[in-house]
Amino acid sequence: MPAAYDELSQNSANYVPLSPVSFLDRTADIYPDREAVVYNERRYSWAEVRERCRRFASALKARGIGKNDTVSLLTFNTPEMFECHFAVPMAGAVINTINTRLDAATIAYIIDHGEAKLFIVDRELWPVLEDALSQCEGKPEIVIIDDPSAASKPDLSRGDFKFYEDLINDGDAEYKGEPLEDEWQALSLNYTSGTTGLPKGVVYHHRGSYLMSMGTVPSWGLTPHPRYLYTVPMFHCNGWGHAWTMTLMAGTIFCLRAFSPKAVFDMIEGHAITHFGGAPVVLNMLAGAPVSEQKSFAKPISVMTAGAPPPASVLEAMAKFNFDVMHVYGLTETYGHILQSAPQDDWAAKSIAEQAELKARQGVRFAMSESVDVLEASGKAVPHDGETMGEIVIRGNTVMKGYLKDKAATETAFVSGWFASGDLGVIYPDGYIQLKDRAKDIIISGGENISSVEVETALYKHPSVDLAAVVAMPDPKWGEVPCAFVELKGDVSEAELIEFCANNMARFKRPKRVIFGALPKTATGKIQKKELRERAAAL
Amino acid sequence: MPAAYDELSQNSANYVPLSPVSFLDRTADIYPDREAVVYNERRYSWAEVRERCRRFASALKARGIGKNDTVSLLTFNTPEMFECHFAVPMAGAVINTINTRLDAATIAYIIDHGEAKLFIVDRELWPVLEDALSQCEGKPEIVIIDDPSAASKPDLSRGDFKFYEDLINDGDAEYKGEPLEDEWQALSLNYTSGTTGLPKGVVYHHRGSYLMSMGTVPSWGLTPHPRYLYTVPMFHCNGWGHAWTMTLMAGTIFCLRAFSPKAVFDMIEGHAITHFGGAPVVLNMLAGAPVSEQKSFAKPISVMTAGAPPPASVLEAMAKFNFDVMHVYGLTETYGHILQSAPQDDWAAKSIAEQAELKARQGVRFAMSESVDVLEASGKAVPHDGETMGEIVIRGNTVMKGYLKDKAATETAFVSGWFASGDLGVIYPDGYIQLKDRAKDIIISGGENISSVEVETALYKHPSVDLAAVVAMPDPKWGEVPCAFVELKGDVSEAELIEFCANNMARFKRPKRVIFGALPKTATGKIQKKELRERAAAL
Repeated sequence: MPAAYDELSQNSANYVPLSPVSFLDRTADIYPDREAVVYNERRYSWAEVRERCRRFASALKARGIGKNDTVSLLTFNTPEMFECHFAVPMAGAVINTINTRLDAATIAYIIDHGEAKLFIVDRELWPVLEDALSQCEGKPEIVIIDDPSAASKPDLSRGDFKFYEDLINDGDAEYKGEPLEDEWQALSLNYTSGTTGLPKGVVYHHRGSYLMSMGTVPSWGLTPHPRYLYTVPMFHCNGWGHAWTMTLMAGTIFCLRAFSPKAVFDMIEGHAITHFGGAPVVLNMLAGAPVSEQKSFAKPISVMTAGAPPPASVLEAMAKFNFDVMHVYGLTETYGHILQSAPQDDWAAKSIAEQAELKARQGVRFAMSESVDVLEASGKAVPHDGETMGEIVIRGNTVMKGYLKDKAATETAFVSGWFASGDLGVIYPDGYIQLKDRAKDIIISGGENISSVEVETALYKHPSVDLAAVVAMPDPKWGEVPCAFVELKGDVSEAELIEFCANNMARFKRPKRVIFGALPKTATGKIQKKELRERAAAL
Repeated sequence: MPAAYDELSQNSANYVPLSPVSFLDRTADIYPDREAVVYNERRYSWAEVRERCRRFASALKARGIGKNDTVSLLTFNTPEMFECHFAVPMAGAVINTINTRLDAATIAYIIDHGEAKLFIVDRELWPVLEDALSQCEGKPEIVIIDDPSAASKPDLSRGDFKFYEDLINDGDAEYKGEPLEDEWQALSLNYTSGTTGLPKGVVYHHRGSYLMSMGTVPSWGLTPHPRYLYTVPMFHCNGWGHAWTMTLMAGTIFCLRAFSPKAVFDMIEGHAITHFGGAPVVLNMLAGAPVSEQKSFAKPISVMTAGAPPPASVLEAMAKFNFDVMHVYGLTETYGHILQSAPQDDWAAKSIAEQAELKARQGVRFAMSESVDVLEASGKAVPHDGETMGEIVIRGNTVMKGYLKDKAATETAFVSGWFASGDLGVIYPDGYIQLKDRAKDIIISGGENISSVEVETALYKHPSVDLAAVVAMPDPKWGEVPCAFVELKGDVSEAELIEFCANNMARFKRPKRVIFGALPKTATGKIQKKELRERAAAL
């Protein structure tokens, strides 16, 4: 009886657009006096955070900012950055957080492309923004965060702006925000820090970020009131969505302006931190910190890591601190994590080395990831053999709306009902996906595909290797051969390292050259393989 | 720039209709060999459960059952009942679970009203269904669950039907189910066991049940792999949605055909159960079980209770077993629980009696409940004073689509953007809601409102009272006065009990009469106040 069931329609009581902004109201209603955000001497309860967000949102509205207007931020993980994840969408606007390590020209491009109407900047970063503003067409209104703990206080006399805290003080504490009419409305704009070409503007919507938060809870095993250290920059996929997730969980968020291993260890101890996140390179810095700065903890600390597979040595070091590491995988285009190396019951009984190998895989889908597969060029799913490589493809509600004002790139990204990640991987018999390479990082040698990640994994097994990157080097006989770039923490010769690799993997995959020295990195800390490819070509 | 953000549209990669059915695929993909469903000697892994669901769903499809067709069940909490929560919607159909204690005439009404196309019945319940079929117009195809552990094996010779297990055996293990095109599609049909009038058919949709499961996780603090004892009948709001929630969490579901305190204690011990649910009357049965059957546990067991506020004495008894009770509130119309007595940090330091009083309140909204308020007749929200009474109103995605084929009741239920619960409550200064009464259960005495629940609470404080119900009795002077009906577990006289109440509450609220004896109950175990009102009127 189709008619009878279908004639029951949506109304404002039984259909509410999903939005992560709703988490703030719920948590502030239930836990008004609970500690919400802590930053140095500043401590806000959930009632206070909500009031500050309402005040700032009303100030945005008063400035004519509303639906689909872009509000950009160039700032650190301070309370203001956190607040804007609620205040900006409360006004109906789109939050655009920008990597603090970007150069002025790129920021200028983003201001114009994203049509920023208002720009919130930490005073310390005013010089680079000032430079950017001289290179762009847009003239966003400027709001300064004047943090007393900033490392420097650049002169502000040449600018025309308001201070963030003044807008808060002048705002309306009773403002309830603009009603959200459509959960598909844009919430956030995140520019990818592409190593080639211009950055692309990835657009998130309210539904996606709501589900990202909801799905992270079962998959990360979060329970109420986590004590979360915000080490992940909020300009990366909105801090992996954790600003919203931790609000949903009525956690306490500890802000960190500048990362240092000592600060992290001290804060974990001093604030009884239960959760934090960081790329393997960050974990590596913790592992490599002076022993006098390191601490280990009685209760396990849950750590989410993403961006690259954590080497076994790093996982072993983390175990020493009692850090329980969950390796996850995702892209800016997927709101952050969509796969996780979810532990199976029998992993705990395995050796640390075996566990590390299992955990280094990108894994299986998060609760909100509807479908993830690996497809061969033919479009057929790869067999679950751990060997056949294909492209990782993703389907779900935490896949971006698309690239802003870039129809061509958007159409290229969506193929036959999938988002094509551009990453190459395999699927093991247990269903776990392992990333083998970026499509463009694969080395084709004598007709054989060599995964640069596999060669890097072999290099990392050598105790003297601190950081390794492998790229294709042109070769007259084989077409391409692997060339390794390595930062050392011990002694080893090029020949020894090549032989070590030959003994730890299929011999033909060994690097033909190893170059020692500092590796070039992007603003986000990613190794710039493009530059290494150029260096290798010139060898 | 509205155009640029809005022109990024939905496609099959970035928009997937939400459905709790998706949890089964994800869990079976990730944990294929993990124990999923346990019932006596039967044990199924997640891969096996999925295969059985696919087979049964394909059998439904082969019988022409699809979108918006009703499949009814009259059965106990056996694996088949669990499987149908996935298999029926996989075929696109609507699952209609029916209270096993209903009489044949009511079942006949439900068959005709819900237009059941196929009816799945436990063999033990065949006689009542046979009777029902003789009273209704509909001729659904009949499928029998032939459980070897049934208490009785009625003769089946007069029927024309298939066996459930034969349909599984003949089904297609590769069937993937019908693609869901609209998350608003009907998923489930639950008839309210109204104490007056005909039952109403409450319709749930896929989006709502997905969000119900997702939101239960943060609010109940669920972590992966709960070991869940299914004490709550799956015919109540689809077992409070836990069939889907526990699948999302890759739990192990332990089926219980017939409740007894001994069975519950034995299963908790034998299977290391971590979670279960039950109405306070069920908890009361555990508290009142012979000491030889009771067990207490080293690790806390999480218990969700709903349907009535748990009396302090019950909460105290539960603490003795190490049962950590979460009191929740909801209605069939809200997919089950939408409020919870979420504990605050400072509750743990309070006395058991104080904790019991706090926990007995219905509380604050679940993560998926967008808004819950208490409104006075004027439509104004009540002050948070713990005294001013109003009607509890609810807004969110776990509010029903509406009542099937009952436009009038649906329109009455939705008022000014709210679902009107018909329950009366107050809000305390801390934002916690307490239910005071059903609108029709309030006693108006000399112009003063007396909450029957408040009088019952006073009665429950007397050690001799086992079960109490208070209704209005006509009174020439006051209009109405409270009349109590009580089941005793100790000795007390009517006069003593009235005096006890007078000393434990405002004197004018004391019952004027107390009648001792067994209380009349509905099929769901609710006390039939309608009948008590008639008795009181005849006194």
